[in-house]
Amino acid sequence: MELWYTEFQTKGVGITCKTKKTYHTEKTQFQEMALIETEQFGRMLVLDGTVQTTIEDEFVYHEMITHVPLFTHNNPKKALVVGGGDGGAIREILKHPSIEKAVLCEIDGRVVELCREYLPEISCALSDSRADVQIADGIKYVQEHKNEFDVIMVDSTDPVGPAVGLFAVDFYRAIYESLKEDGIFVAQTESPFFHKELIKGVYRDVKSVFPIARLYTCAIPTYPSGYWSFTMGSKKYDPIETDTSKIPELDTKYYCADVHKAAFALPRFAAELVK
Amino acid sequence: MELWYTEFQTKGVGITCKTKKTYHTEKTQFQEMALIETEQFGRMLVLDGTVQTTIEDEFVYHEMITHVPLFTHNNPKKALVVGGGDGGAIREILKHPSIEKAVLCEIDGRVVELCREYLPEISCALSDSRADVQIADGIKYVQEHKNEFDVIMVDSTDPVGPAVGLFAVDFYRAIYESLKEDGIFVAQTESPFFHKELIKGVYRDVKSVFPIARLYTCAIPTYPSGYWSFTMGSKKYDPIETDTSKIPELDTKYYCADVHKAAFALPRFAAELVK
Repeated sequence: MELWYTEFQTKGVGITCKTKKTYHTEKTQFQEMALIETEQFGRMLVLDGTVQTTIEDEFVYHEMITHVPLFTHNNPKKALVVGGGDGGAIREILKHPSIEKAVLCEIDGRVVELCREYLPEISCALSDSRADVQIADGIKYVQEHKNEFDVIMVDSTDPVGPAVGLFAVDFYRAIYESLKEDGIFVAQTESPFFHKELIKGVYRDVKSVFPIARLYTCAIPTYPSGYWSFTMGSKKYDPIETDTSKIPELDTKYYCADVHKAAFALPRFAAELVK
Repeated sequence: MELWYTEFQTKGVGITCKTKKTYHTEKTQFQEMALIETEQFGRMLVLDGTVQTTIEDEFVYHEMITHVPLFTHNNPKKALVVGGGDGGAIREILKHPSIEKAVLCEIDGRVVELCREYLPEISCALSDSRADVQIADGIKYVQEHKNEFDVIMVDSTDPVGPAVGLFAVDFYRAIYESLKEDGIFVAQTESPFFHKELIKGVYRDVKSVFPIARLYTCAIPTYPSGYWSFTMGSKKYDPIETDTSKIPELDTKYYCADVHKAAFALPRFAAELVK
């Protein structure tokens, strides 16, 4: 007997994955959660029917949401991840020797607990002494911490359910206040093929708050269309002017100095979204 | 009632598309063929159960298999497409004013006929006076035309069935002979996520025949993993040294001067495949 897990990514297209085992399913205070074993991508975290991360391809997302802003910044010491309960972003942040503290602010404590149990390769760094795990509302946390962070990453689910408020201009304004005077903000902003209006809207909002706004992309097989975007708002540093010759070799599988620059070279249809 | 077309791209993962209509199905001398209407991607050509091209995302593949080698070359006049019966590569080639002749050599005449009928947006340029459509075996055609082409593109199906011979070192040697002294060859070479051994093997073979070998990539939603590769063999011009400031604006949706350079900036796991 074969079992397949299918995510309908839009009304007209889905990804279907052969599954070998279901480790855990649960309805938390905030969402439905599942941890399954897939043949192609290994263990997979699913929230509200949407693939969040998998053992096989998580490296792309976690490296690209972190290293791009961290190497754009001159000397990041304090970082905040809003969402990202799997801990993958924290793991990547802590590869930077300059980082003194990396705060994870995840609204759903059960996501963190499940990932600690079933995805140790991803959540491992949450026990690092520089990691500070807060189970709290990210919007409130940001509002209550002014002028504190060098880099803030919004590692959210799709803009439905608990994550809606994380795609709002008021939140971007609060993030601006929570960053230091040369701070940088990045949010995951869905697929340039499937979510054009969302990207346009977020970019317009970020640009209304930050002097520098940039869109960059990468390839993630388990996310809709396989092609994903991040929107950056920066107070001072422009990521396309990063001196990439100074980027040291990190232990990464996707990000490198060449990729830092190339990620901002948008295909014409994607460049059109942020004109 | 909902109808969905599912392609199992590997043993463990598939793409599923909501379909609105089946225009045509047929078993030709070479393969099974279907032309369907999908909700997400519009009309879609399927050969032997594998998505070949769709109205919505064909632009990526056709622009990237053509403009990258054509702008790497100094002054391409004569181009050959092996496979590519949909005509999309020919359409892009003919956007270059220097091109005097673009030969399409497709083994299955029924593919060309079906695409002329159902995919006119893609096949339109096959009626251009500079296009020369040959229904013939591409391997034989290449063997019989020596020292003739500036650029040869192998726009093949996956390396099973009729396309197996198009992924062989003997064929790359014949292509080398069929190119002029500064000629360039490009082949589609599958997904860096799912087809690592294939990419390694093709790159090794191409490098054994051509002085310059390069891998480049792009994002194609309907192809396995959404991330696709092309392998280039070049006698003289190195694509990463192309003076992209001289690339004129073409009528494209993906390719542009920035993308030309960025496509060769490989994520580390992909760079490892061609080390």
